[in-house]
Parts: sequence; structure tokens; C-alpha cells
Amino acid sequence: MRIALLGGTGNIGEGLALRWAPKHAIVIGSRSEEKAEQAAASCEERLRASGVVCELAGKENVQAIENCDVVVVALPYEHAIPTVNSIRANLNSSAIVLSPVVPMTKDGFMRYVPRAPYDSAAMEIKDMLPDHDVAAAFHTTPAARLIDLTDTLGLDVIVCGAEASKQTVMRLVEDIDGLTPFDGGPLEASPMIESITPLLINLSARNRIKNSSIRVIAQRID
Amino acid sequence: MRIALLGGTGNIGEGLALRWAPKHAIVIGSRSEEKAEQAAASCEERLRASGVVCELAGKENVQAIENCDVVVVALPYEHAIPTVNSIRANLNSSAIVLSPVVPMTKDGFMRYVPRAPYDSAAMEIKDMLPDHDVAAAFHTTPAARLIDLTDTLGLDVIVCGAEASKQTVMRLVEDIDGLTPFDGGPLEASPMIESITPLLINLSARNRIKNSSIRVIAQRID
Repeated sequence: MRIALLGGTGNIGEGLALRWAPKHAIVIGSRSEEKAEQAAASCEERLRASGVVCELAGKENVQAIENCDVVVVALPYEHAIPTVNSIRANLNSSAIVLSPVVPMTKDGFMRYVPRAPYDSAAMEIKDMLPDHDVAAAFHTTPAARLIDLTDTLGLDVIVCGAEASKQTVMRLVEDIDGLTPFDGGPLEASPMIESITPLLINLSARNRIKNSSIRVIAQRID
Repeated sequence: MRIALLGGTGNIGEGLALRWAPKHAIVIGSRSEEKAEQAAASCEERLRASGVVCELAGKENVQAIENCDVVVVALPYEHAIPTVNSIRANLNSSAIVLSPVVPMTKDGFMRYVPRAPYDSAAMEIKDMLPDHDVAAAFHTTPAARLIDLTDTLGLDVIVCGAEASKQTVMRLVEDIDGLTPFDGGPLEASPMIESITPLLINLSARNRIKNSSIRVIAQRID
């Protein structure tokens, strides 16, 4: 697949770029072409250092999304919405948009604050892209752990969205060793998934832990 | 401690009664004294079957809360609010009220739906009890696993609330072997904790699993 990662520097986007690069064509997008190229080169170098040789592209956002199957909006909420707005006219009709975006604010502790009338960032993005499939995932995957290629992870990823796009994203989760996808339901379930991120930030701040994430513990029905 | 469990039949309340009974004085509360007494007797029997002999009391709700240190509102949201309303005049001033309550509705999938203007059930309960400490916990602890006394659990419990009550509840979590408490912040963090329950119900319904819960996966800071 051809995957554009908008905002692939130093965060979840960089982590996903590194983990997917051996299996998929990765294009890192940025407002600055130069920054995007630097990020792509830095990912190639990190991968080479761990014995993996592959090429990543770096382009300005609108160029980055060209012919992409999946576009990941790997940006803080404040930048995510204007960026989606700036690319939407150029998005090919079959592209799936994947949102790990979480609107939150610090007010003594981290709070989840989707912008009214939207119940979540993913639903706000969907409202901007009525003709595209939007899925949401990776809200609980610590960027620092993805970026560290020696980390074997062992984490779960809850995915929600329209059925076909959700299945595609669940396969993309499986493409990363150590991550297990769970079907979280339709995109309307995204508020319950996004709000785990500020909760995890609070847990890190208050329990002498860092890079908090979750595993789903359950009994399998055969 | 003297702990009243309002609604201690066949749910999280029964599970907590069973797990706490060896260490604390448990009073199961119900609208019907007879049902409460039956529930208490049934808990005693279950405990005896696993080799633990202890007594539990069963009383009508208003009698059940008398002199209690902690009152757990172990009821579905629809019954929780009227029940708190019915006991609040009789609640002793130092009692901590513990809410595992989650307002949710099924609409194709389970949604989290706190009643406006409240952001969570715990905050709605706090609004009814302005002079009492309210804490929230056990939203992700499957009742069926607590009730099965052979189950060694291995689950995490996120607790939020005013500082002193939160510390008390975290110690009560530690009193149950196999449960680890995490400080989730002030009571205002409860929406992010409560909303995990419908998410877990959705995960169970869609991923061929049951009794879904979570563990917090993190790196310890020393």
C-alpha cells in the first residue's frame, strides 16, 4: 500500500513510518518539503541502523497524498483540522483517512475536549470528508515505543470506522509485529477510544510511569 | 472498614462483597430487606464453598448505609441516581461514596451517554452529595470474574476522586488480590474512565471475547 503520513516527525507518524516502511510505500508529508525530506532520510537512517534497508519519500502535504491508499493524520488536533482542510480537495476518491488525533487540554490534568458539535476529532474529520472513509486508531500506542525499533511492543490497538476501512486498518495494525488489532465498532465509537489518550497521560503523570498504554484482557470465545 | 454495597446481587456489588468480606464488614443493601438478606446469605455460602467463613449483613438501603465508611453504588445508572437520592439524607457525614456507575445506551453499539449537564455519572452523584467525598472506580472490572473466587484476576483499576477518598479506595483495591490500583486523577477525570465500559462491551461483542477488561502497560520511572 501507499501510505502518506502527515506529520511524520518525532511522533506517532514517525513511529508508524518506521514500522510500516519494510512492507509499504511510505510518504512523509509536511507543510515544508525540506522538513519532510529530512524526516524521510532520518527514518531511512534509523532503519539502516537496525539492519533494514528501504526508501521513504518526503513531500509537501498535497504532493504526499497523491495516489495514496491511506492518509494518516499524525498531527496534534490543532494542526490536524487545518491540514485536512488544506488537502481535502486533492484527496483521491478511494483514499482512507486514518485519524489517531485526540483533542485535549491541560487544566490541572489532561481532559478530553472534542470541539462541539463534534463528539470526536475523527468525526470532525469525517464531516470535512463526507465522501471518504475515515477510520480511527493508534490513540493508545506510545510514539516513543514505536520509534524504538528494539521495542517488541506487545500492545493492543482499538480500531473504529466504516467496515471496509476498518478491516484495512486492522490489517495495517497486524503488519506491525507486537501490535494486535481489536474491532472497536463504527466511527461513532471514536469518542470512547480517543478519550483514553488523556487518561493515559494522567496515569503517567500520577503513577511514576511513562509511555502508558493498554492491553485488552479478555476470555476468548471459541 | 464498614462497607455498604447498594445493589449487591449478581453484579459488581456481589463481586466486591465476596472479595472484601474476609477483610471488611460488608452490608449488602437493597430496596427489599428480604432480597438483601438473601444476597448476604448467598455470599456467605459462596465464600464457605471456597473455604472462607465470614458473615455479611443484608439490609434495606437506608439501614445498610448506617455508620458506613464507604458506600458503593453498585447499580445500573437508571437505578443508581434515584437510590442515591433516597439515601442521601441518612448518609453519615464522613462516608465516602464510591461509584462504578456508567450511563450508557445501546444504539447499534454501546455508547457512553452521561446526562447533561453532567459529564459523568460520578459527577452527577457528587452534585447530589456536595458535602461528601465521591470517588469512582471498578468500571473495567468484570463482575463475572470478581464473583468467580477461583479467578486470580490480574487486572488494573483506575480510581479517581478527591485526594483522601481516592487514597482510601486505592487501598480497598489493593485489598483484593490480583487487582492493582492506578491514580486516575480528580473526580473530573471520571468521564474518561466511565467511557471505557461501553467500549469494552463493544470489544466483547465484536471480537469473539467476553469479560473484557484492561491492563495498563507502562514503563516504571524509579
